[in-house]
Amino acid sequence: MVVDWGIVEANLERMAARVSARGHALWPHVKTHKSLRWARRQMELGARGLMVAKLEEAGPLARHGMDALYVGYPLVGPGPARRLEQLVAADIRVRVAVDSLAGVACLAQVAQATRAPITALVEVDTGFHRCGVATVEEAARLADALTTAGVLYQGITCFGGHITWRLSDDERRAAVVAETRQLAQWSDDLRARGWAPEVVSQGGTVPTGYLELLSAATELRPGTYIYNDTATVLAGAAEWADCAAWVWTTVVSTPTSDRTVVDAGSKTLAGDGPVAGSFGHLRERPDLVVASLSEEHGVIRARDGGRTGLQVGDRLSVVPNHVCTMINLHDAVHLVEGRRVVGSLAVDLRGAVH
Amino acid sequence: MVVDWGIVEANLERMAARVSARGHALWPHVKTHKSLRWARRQMELGARGLMVAKLEEAGPLARHGMDALYVGYPLVGPGPARRLEQLVAADIRVRVAVDSLAGVACLAQVAQATRAPITALVEVDTGFHRCGVATVEEAARLADALTTAGVLYQGITCFGGHITWRLSDDERRAAVVAETRQLAQWSDDLRARGWAPEVVSQGGTVPTGYLELLSAATELRPGTYIYNDTATVLAGAAEWADCAAWVWTTVVSTPTSDRTVVDAGSKTLAGDGPVAGSFGHLRERPDLVVASLSEEHGVIRARDGGRTGLQVGDRLSVVPNHVCTMINLHDAVHLVEGRRVVGSLAVDLRGAVH
Repeated sequence: MVVDWGIVEANLERMAARVSARGHALWPHVKTHKSLRWARRQMELGARGLMVAKLEEAGPLARHGMDALYVGYPLVGPGPARRLEQLVAADIRVRVAVDSLAGVACLAQVAQATRAPITALVEVDTGFHRCGVATVEEAARLADALTTAGVLYQGITCFGGHITWRLSDDERRAAVVAETRQLAQWSDDLRARGWAPEVVSQGGTVPTGYLELLSAATELRPGTYIYNDTATVLAGAAEWADCAAWVWTTVVSTPTSDRTVVDAGSKTLAGDGPVAGSFGHLRERPDLVVASLSEEHGVIRARDGGRTGLQVGDRLSVVPNHVCTMINLHDAVHLVEGRRVVGSLAVDLRGAVH
Repeated sequence: MVVDWGIVEANLERMAARVSARGHALWPHVKTHKSLRWARRQMELGARGLMVAKLEEAGPLARHGMDALYVGYPLVGPGPARRLEQLVAADIRVRVAVDSLAGVACLAQVAQATRAPITALVEVDTGFHRCGVATVEEAARLADALTTAGVLYQGITCFGGHITWRLSDDERRAAVVAETRQLAQWSDDLRARGWAPEVVSQGGTVPTGYLELLSAATELRPGTYIYNDTATVLAGAAEWADCAAWVWTTVVSTPTSDRTVVDAGSKTLAGDGPVAGSFGHLRERPDLVVASLSEEHGVIRARDGGRTGLQVGDRLSVVPNHVCTMINLHDAVHLVEGRRVVGSLAVDLRGAVH
């Protein structure tokens, strides 16, 4: 697996410039890259802080001087409370997403134990139907409970994971407009109840393709933009040339003229379902698809069902469907500039236990 | 993630006894567990050797004294040739699958460089349509090319990956019978051409559920049987009580009464597609399904669409759909006996570079 340094740098700089030009704060999500090198670079380029998907990712960042972290995940129970306490005790400014009274109780426990300020955003559901409260009454109830518990209620957060490549461009634009409208409504309704959000935090790389429509958000949390992938390109949020991470794979078998096998399977590319009929984008041969994956095999076929034209030993580069799960399979990847390997990139946060 | 030692031991002993009782040689596939501890135990219980899916898995096994290895993967080109040479030079008895003249050339190069015996099995396609030659003429041509190149042709190998939980029991039984008939035909046809196979090697845990039907094979290469998983159980090759590996997960959010979110997603369970409508089997609550996975979230719903009845903080155990890809996500797992944690199990071969 390779990552192109130049493309990464261009992606990071472009997003930082675009987001700040619109006055949004940028909180990049590190789960995509899980690398300290890029986390540092994102901070250098003006990120206000970094988002993590779990406390295991926060530990290494905190130990390496990144001291403003948003744990965008509901923390509940004694284990997360203990880990969160350690972060707070190490003077990390921590912000946490919350969508239940059990989540408030966890933060309350840490706030009492540490006597340090902890900030929370109430997660609201804008249509993805994963986490997030469904009504403004519930959001207000959580804001109130947070405040009572000595936790700083700062606003609301959402992730529009339903806005994907599966929609047409018109549908996607409409969905982004709808999310903005919802966030504005949540803000108004909370303000009316005395819980005006200071922060309105919107997640995802796909919405950043429609930056001019994100008028309700005060901050953005794209993750995938650092590397991009097939799903991001097909959602209109990047070009193929912006894809910075791919797998170099070799043809190992050509059993029939219409079926070719390469040495990249689900243990290399990740097993996320097909995007536009393929388990990855074949850069040099968009006329072919990765029709199926075994653990160590990818089966290549032509879109038209005909000959693949490939020979044993041929090399192909595969842009993954979902780069975040692919990166998580690798301890380190080759860092390249163009066709030259310039080093190795550690996936530091992968498998971190805290 | 936890692995139950007692269940593992029972699974290993039962398969060893059943396979040897029928006179088959056993070559367990280590890709499922990737752990030196279990590889050793499989050898102690009478395995003739171990199968690996790639040379990266072979290196650590060889360095720890396991000296009979079957690389069941087509090796082509200079990189694999160099790695194979290292194994042969370390006095490892290596057997390799081959299904092309390019594969023969790779083995020929190693045989010439090392002057050591290398054994090959010609891979034949019995219906999975991944690797493997399609005709006896081609198999005979490869046997001839191997012999000319100084590589020992030993027989044929196959993997019936199409025989899965997706078939009914009757269909699965018919598919196993068909594979046996094909292997017998391949053997007869090759014998008639002077290439009688000494070894007929059949892969997969699912066929071992029909051991009495595997009369054409001389050896079996199950992998998943050590842990089993949802797909294995639904294919009739194991019971739920034989599933030795699962994830303990916690409910982190209950946004609506019919939707619950747990802290196990595709970075924990692997993203292999749904099996019988769920991304994993919920041991304590088979009335519920894992309806979808994000990277760190699993969304739980009731099969009947009603209330899940779960509260934040509840614990559930999830048997994965495909244990091989799940194990590959973890550097180490908790080893338990019943409900007691007795240690840690390293996934030694995960991420091995050689």
